[in-house]
Amino acid sequence: MSGLREECGVFGIWSGNGTDVAHDIYCGLMSLQHRGQESAGIAVCDTTGPEGNLCVHKDMGLVSEVFNEEIINSLKGNIGIGHVRYSTTGGSSIENAQPLCYRYMKGTLSVVHNGNIVNASLLKDELMNEGMMFRATTDSEVIATLVAKMRARTGRIETAIKMAAAHLIGGYAIIIMSPRKLVAMRDPLGIKPLCLGRVNDGWVLASESCALHSIGAEFVRDVEPGEILCISGEGVTSDREMCGKKHAHCIFEYIYFSRLDSEIDGISVHASRINGGKALAKAYPIDADIVTGVPESGLAAAMGYSMGSGIPFALAFHKNSYVGRTFIKPTIKERRAGVLLKLNVIADVVKDKRVVLIDDSIVRGTTITNLITMMRDAGAKEVHVRISSPPFLHPCYYGTDVPDNTQLIANNFSVEEIRKRIGADSLGYMRLEDLSSMTGDLGLCRACFDGRYPTEINC
Amino acid sequence: MSGLREECGVFGIWSGNGTDVAHDIYCGLMSLQHRGQESAGIAVCDTTGPEGNLCVHKDMGLVSEVFNEEIINSLKGNIGIGHVRYSTTGGSSIENAQPLCYRYMKGTLSVVHNGNIVNASLLKDELMNEGMMFRATTDSEVIATLVAKMRARTGRIETAIKMAAAHLIGGYAIIIMSPRKLVAMRDPLGIKPLCLGRVNDGWVLASESCALHSIGAEFVRDVEPGEILCISGEGVTSDREMCGKKHAHCIFEYIYFSRLDSEIDGISVHASRINGGKALAKAYPIDADIVTGVPESGLAAAMGYSMGSGIPFALAFHKNSYVGRTFIKPTIKERRAGVLLKLNVIADVVKDKRVVLIDDSIVRGTTITNLITMMRDAGAKEVHVRISSPPFLHPCYYGTDVPDNTQLIANNFSVEEIRKRIGADSLGYMRLEDLSSMTGDLGLCRACFDGRYPTEINC
Amino acid sequence: MSGLREECGVFGIWSGNGTDVAHDIYCGLMSLQHRGQESAGIAVCDTTGPEGNLCVHKDMGLVSEVFNEEIINSLKGNIGIGHVRYSTTGGSSIENAQPLCYRYMKGTLSVVHNGNIVNASLLKDELMNEGMMFRATTDSEVIATLVAKMRARTGRIETAIKMAAAHLIGGYAIIIMSPRKLVAMRDPLGIKPLCLGRVNDGWVLASESCALHSIGAEFVRDVEPGEILCISGEGVTSDREMCGKKHAHCIFEYIYFSRLDSEIDGISVHASRINGGKALAKAYPIDADIVTGVPESGLAAAMGYSMGSGIPFALAFHKNSYVGRTFIKPTIKERRAGVLLKLNVIADVVKDKRVVLIDDSIVRGTTITNLITMMRDAGAKEVHVRISSPPFLHPCYYGTDVPDNTQLIANNFSVEEIRKRIGADSLGYMRLEDLSSMTGDLGLCRACFDGRYPTEINC
Amino acid sequence: MSGLREECGVFGIWSGNGTDVAHDIYCGLMSLQHRGQESAGIAVCDTTGPEGNLCVHKDMGLVSEVFNEEIINSLKGNIGIGHVRYSTTGGSSIENAQPLCYRYMKGTLSVVHNGNIVNASLLKDELMNEGMMFRATTDSEVIATLVAKMRARTGRIETAIKMAAAHLIGGYAIIIMSPRKLVAMRDPLGIKPLCLGRVNDGWVLASESCALHSIGAEFVRDVEPGEILCISGEGVTSDREMCGKKHAHCIFEYIYFSRLDSEIDGISVHASRINGGKALAKAYPIDADIVTGVPESGLAAAMGYSMGSGIPFALAFHKNSYVGRTFIKPTIKERRAGVLLKLNVIADVVKDKRVVLIDDSIVRGTTITNLITMMRDAGAKEVHVRISSPPFLHPCYYGTDVPDNTQLIANNFSVEEIRKRIGADSLGYMRLEDLSSMTGDLGLCRACFDGRYPTEINC
Repeated sequence: MSGLREECGVFGIWSGNGTDVAHDIYCGLMSLQHRGQESAGIAVCDTTGPEGNLCVHKDMGLVSEVFNEEIINSLKGNIGIGHVRYSTTGGSSIENAQPLCYRYMKGTLSVVHNGNIVNASLLKDELMNEGMMFRATTDSEVIATLVAKMRARTGRIETAIKMAAAHLIGGYAIIIMSPRKLVAMRDPLGIKPLCLGRVNDGWVLASESCALHSIGAEFVRDVEPGEILCISGEGVTSDREMCGKKHAHCIFEYIYFSRLDSEIDGISVHASRINGGKALAKAYPIDADIVTGVPESGLAAAMGYSMGSGIPFALAFHKNSYVGRTFIKPTIKERRAGVLLKLNVIADVVKDKRVVLIDDSIVRGTTITNLITMMRDAGAKEVHVRISSPPFLHPCYYGTDVPDNTQLIANNFSVEEIRKRIGADSLGYMRLEDLSSMTGDLGLCRACFDGRYPTEINC
Repeated sequence: MSGLREECGVFGIWSGNGTDVAHDIYCGLMSLQHRGQESAGIAVCDTTGPEGNLCVHKDMGLVSEVFNEEIINSLKGNIGIGHVRYSTTGGSSIENAQPLCYRYMKGTLSVVHNGNIVNASLLKDELMNEGMMFRATTDSEVIATLVAKMRARTGRIETAIKMAAAHLIGGYAIIIMSPRKLVAMRDPLGIKPLCLGRVNDGWVLASESCALHSIGAEFVRDVEPGEILCISGEGVTSDREMCGKKHAHCIFEYIYFSRLDSEIDGISVHASRINGGKALAKAYPIDADIVTGVPESGLAAAMGYSMGSGIPFALAFHKNSYVGRTFIKPTIKERRAGVLLKLNVIADVVKDKRVVLIDDSIVRGTTITNLITMMRDAGAKEVHVRISSPPFLHPCYYGTDVPDNTQLIANNFSVEEIRKRIGADSLGYMRLEDLSSMTGDLGLCRACFDGRYPTEINC
Repeated sequence: MSGLREECGVFGIWSGNGTDVAHDIYCGLMSLQHRGQESAGIAVCDTTGPEGNLCVHKDMGLVSEVFNEEIINSLKGNIGIGHVRYSTTGGSSIENAQPLCYRYMKGTLSVVHNGNIVNASLLKDELMNEGMMFRATTDSEVIATLVAKMRARTGRIETAIKMAAAHLIGGYAIIIMSPRKLVAMRDPLGIKPLCLGRVNDGWVLASESCALHSIGAEFVRDVEPGEILCISGEGVTSDREMCGKKHAHCIFEYIYFSRLDSEIDGISVHASRINGGKALAKAYPIDADIVTGVPESGLAAAMGYSMGSGIPFALAFHKNSYVGRTFIKPTIKERRAGVLLKLNVIADVVKDKRVVLIDDSIVRGTTITNLITMMRDAGAKEVHVRISSPPFLHPCYYGTDVPDNTQLIANNFSVEEIRKRIGADSLGYMRLEDLSSMTGDLGLCRACFDGRYPTEINC
Repeated sequence: MSGLREECGVFGIWSGNGTDVAHDIYCGLMSLQHRGQESAGIAVCDTTGPEGNLCVHKDMGLVSEVFNEEIINSLKGNIGIGHVRYSTTGGSSIENAQPLCYRYMKGTLSVVHNGNIVNASLLKDELMNEGMMFRATTDSEVIATLVAKMRARTGRIETAIKMAAAHLIGGYAIIIMSPRKLVAMRDPLGIKPLCLGRVNDGWVLASESCALHSIGAEFVRDVEPGEILCISGEGVTSDREMCGKKHAHCIFEYIYFSRLDSEIDGISVHASRINGGKALAKAYPIDADIVTGVPESGLAAAMGYSMGSGIPFALAFHKNSYVGRTFIKPTIKERRAGVLLKLNVIADVVKDKRVVLIDDSIVRGTTITNLITMMRDAGAKEVHVRISSPPFLHPCYYGTDVPDNTQLIANNFSVEEIRKRIGADSLGYMRLEDLSSMTGDLGLCRACFDGRYPTEINC
């Protein structure tokens, strides 16, 4: 039920047997749809065709809205990349939809990118002062422009990418397609996820491992922070020159962004949430009859809380999967608080019960307030809220879209004040020191909780 | 994961304070969307306006596709009806989308209908031989035509409806809107559900109680089998002349059709499934590590199985909510069995575990086979399947759309053969005698299991 | 430039060699598009297939918007009917789009209709009092309902149509398709046009002869007023029992509605307009340098005026064919009168000239005022306006949609006042007594000019 | 009826009183729609707003399809440019739709362009070798990239444009919008047209003068070949440094491309066609009853032929304005030659007549053959064809899209052979030496007729 939004998901594939890859990319993007729902796109090349052959289709909307069978069949090529995206800036954003595709000195250059370049504005000014132009307003085009510029000074695309990366500060996972190669690059801190898979004799790259499963590919390994992987007709080569020891993996991939069935940097997302729930149970025990979670993101933590506390787990909500981007008039709320089309309490489950309710975060507090009201209306005797992340206090500079500070309830009220406002009987947030229960000794970026950013941020 | 499909959901509302009802109908239909996803429609009247004022909008597609804010705002009226529908016949089915709206001798007549009239074809022939015409191909238009004909012989719409109903054989829940009245009618056996709610000073009718909650209305009671309810400016009147003692409520409303948070004829759907799961645990005990269910319809029964057996419940699947009406090329299956875009196993949960897997039914057997393969691929040691309904063996004549007999796995193979085909370690179907564990002493139609139909069917 | 609008065009075809007819109907409707631009539809049957096979497609919009190649190819059948329509009533008019298609006692019944039944409301009340219902709000459905009712009392569809027609008062051209027959009927006064053509070994029916040409068919003859033509596997039979001697052909078919290249009831539309222009030249001579007409409807009369007067004809306007249903902000008019996107004066032609400008009618007077201003801006020394019809003073009850009386400039001002308001140097309307110059001794309905209606109108 | 296609139309406006200009651009593009029908676009800036404010909307389709009132109203700005376009290359051409909009060192840069740069490919390679990228595949992006590059080396956009133009070979009319300026540039030979107008206190630029009229603006003068006009808050400045004495105006603007009501480089298009028709009459006299032209492009020349010969002019065709981009099955032609949905002969006009038929060109010969057949079918005794341009023999390198040589009938057959193939009684093409009758002593590019190109073409 988080109000936080990840900005993108990326996917790339090199077909081992020369068959068209568009349908696989389509399946992969379907599995990454939770990472971005504003635009979707696929670009493919035929490595056996003439240089410069490139088919691309992209548009605003969900993967299922942007593509249909006819379009997928028209995208002919044995290597390709795909992208799903949230736009964080308004305006005519079709220009920003990815893959971004260009003609440059070596034919075609296509780019997909997840993340945020902290110094993009500075780099863009430098490039413009050299006489360069931009059509998109994203930092992704800054990366592409930098790569094209470097390519004019060196002999190989992967070298140009490394030269460009040396100028980038931030979190990023990039896949670049040239006419004969796929090159992947992950930021040296590993803020953004990227993994490598194998299918038949081909290779797959994806933001999350769940996208590998969607096409029957096997997980090989995560791309290392700072590693540049180059996939070509001669196989996969790796350049680890930019890899460092300090890592800062985004904790929100585990708390909320990534799919429950993905494994990110060696940690199962599902297991991390179960463990988070157990830690919550230990930190904030309570005497109750059932534990439940807000679907979908609170369910695994609730299961963990149940395991940690011994209180039985229950499914207390029905989620209406047909309620998507639906308009609902405000009057419905005025009539009676706690009526939600998307979620309804199963009265049978909570009636006369003391309930522990787990959610992944509280952003504005509106939803959780409604859910608690609904539970009480349905007969719950007590509602104890546990949040599987610490209070969100600082902005993210690496590509997570969050409401501005003034709207964040945690910035304006104490925990006790929040408890009263949302109407809970008790309230507990995950403690900072318990985050390691989720991810073990993995180096984390948790700047949104503690304000300690792993990179320079003023540039 | 059932392949069975209910045909329709109906909704009606009389605003107590004269305000527009279209937005409430929209919310109600959103909550009934699981009952029909091919067309949606709303018709409203203003009882204080001139006779014959009627606004209607309907189209093929989901509620969220057919309606937007502008359309809802343009539907002015303080009484109204709505409908969601599956079409079971092909062709240009927009003609069949409901509400069906007519001009007749007393102004406008609008009809929504869930169910099936067994003798519709016979009645239609009689009417055509009298010189009448039909634009739709549904039995719903037969009902409307019969009502209009009867209305020419009597003084009140509710009497005409009763006279028409005397000719109908089958299962049906109907709401008819005339310029100043809403009249509801449920078949004498109670095969199809219909309930009454109250909001402010107004009245609501809906196929399921969850639709009442969606607009903040309170559940009052189920409409009685055979009862005719007439809602007008003078309040609600009831005619129980056609009510009988024998009831035959459709068991599949509890097993699959109705939403988990609905209460149908005094029985909570959630509780009935929990109890069904408990009965399964008693009938088919097994030594296992976890119990899980196929989302969404198998989860409650799995929870019940867990309660009955003491084996811990777990959520073992991630369901991709973005995969709707998506095309997937068959090749993906050929490459590797058990890859499903819509459901993925959370490896973490099933690895090295003996799993009990609950689903509501097996129609063709394809899906469950894939799920079992996926579980084994993810490391499950054993997979024991329990089905929360008896084998489906007979066609339904009351409005449930089922594949023809030849495709039903239960018609062609023994339970042991099915177990082998789907690759399960053990398999158990709910026993006929255990159905009462779900619904107590409620009179049931379970003809799809035992072939004993509660009405004449050859007409 | 007329503001008057015809309501419909009809087309029917019986393929002689059993081939599909949908593409021919599509071409025919393209040629009748000027008769109705709000909805379009085609229905076809296969006379060699099982009874009741019927394919229909219709929607709001132009023929080119409603149909594409895929849809046309999907309409399989060797007989068919088509329709283009203006709706004169608002609301959800897709219900009114034709062909109207029904199931009745003898299979399917499809109807297309051009015209207006004066006593439709009365007939509809009678049918409703007998218990019948209506889905459309058009008189066309009244005709169909009456035909179905009569069919239950007699043995042949053509007899039923004659029995129904005996009740109809008004102007109409109807084509009815039953599973094995096409039946055409024209009102006894011949108010609405309908003609018969021949292509290969098949038969074609159309509102205008230009639609026959569009598919390479030859004109055979006009359907006689009151005649019922029945086309079946046994050829064409004619029933002239309802034919009478008094005819009242609509004069506006010649003045404005019909296409220049059509021949209606033995009179070439082009020739009738040329002759009208000659009569104008005789009635209102003037000393001028060039004669021009408002495209398209004024051009032929202008050519006639040129022939009659000896003043050279010129094309003085460029018509922008891309300006269709375009919105233009009112501010453009405020800035400067006489700017029209659709028509622009060719300065070269009118500069320093005394111009005679011909249009077919003046409805509100706005357009002609702008045209005169544009001409003067372009340097015309004098602008003399001649109108090729008498002033429009009375409503039409036979299917022509005209603005209400209060908006008609001729109802509110004298000819001299109108001349001043539009800014012309002189103004002359066609004289009533000169109408016969256009159509010879053809019996005419000219009620819109003289108020003498050829049928009862108060029913 | 020409098969030749102009590639683009451009429009620009600087509002004198600070009001929004999008609606004016919309009207202007409507008037230029004949110059390009594949995509349309508008970009506007507010010169009083912050730098970099820019609203753009563009899409594939006609102006009326791409824009609606809501979109126009959302485009806020007091200066702007617009474009209509044919694409001559296939593929996902939305990237090529104009205005092309960029961010560069001085804010935003938007470009519209009509014409073709002969050395674009060479310039593009040079820029790519310097590390620059391209998203579009048009020469228009080469121009923009060159301008941005030059802007980094000089202080003013108009200087940068002049520096860029020094590298361009070809025919072009360009309007560039920077945040505070509109800069227009026409190629030194004047191959492509561009003119300046005045409305209120503002300035307008357009490919043709008819677009000025459409918004009530007054024609001021043509932009001189080689002139750079800069419109800013300080008024209009002109740089004529690149102007030369040799001009080579495209003769096809007069023969076919431009609208009849436009004046291009001091010559009225209408007058030039009238004069061309007179020259034809003198060169190829014939004894005949009427002269007619193929609508629309042949009508003015036919009028001229009539004036020159004394043979009466007549309108012999009805043009169906609803037949746009319509599919028609080939079978209709096989059935009977000479059936055209778009044009039909008015039998009345040609029956028993000897006809002179004027068209602007013969490309493949199919259409004229059909028209002649139709005329004979309608009763014409003789059909004498006169073409108002010389035979088209050489490709155009300046932006006119023509079928390849092998399809051009004039390349494959003698005039007498063509006469036989099309079935005419006589045939005469405009003589090269008579072209000056159309345009007086204007310097012309007539390379498509004589192969003498005014610029280098091999680069």
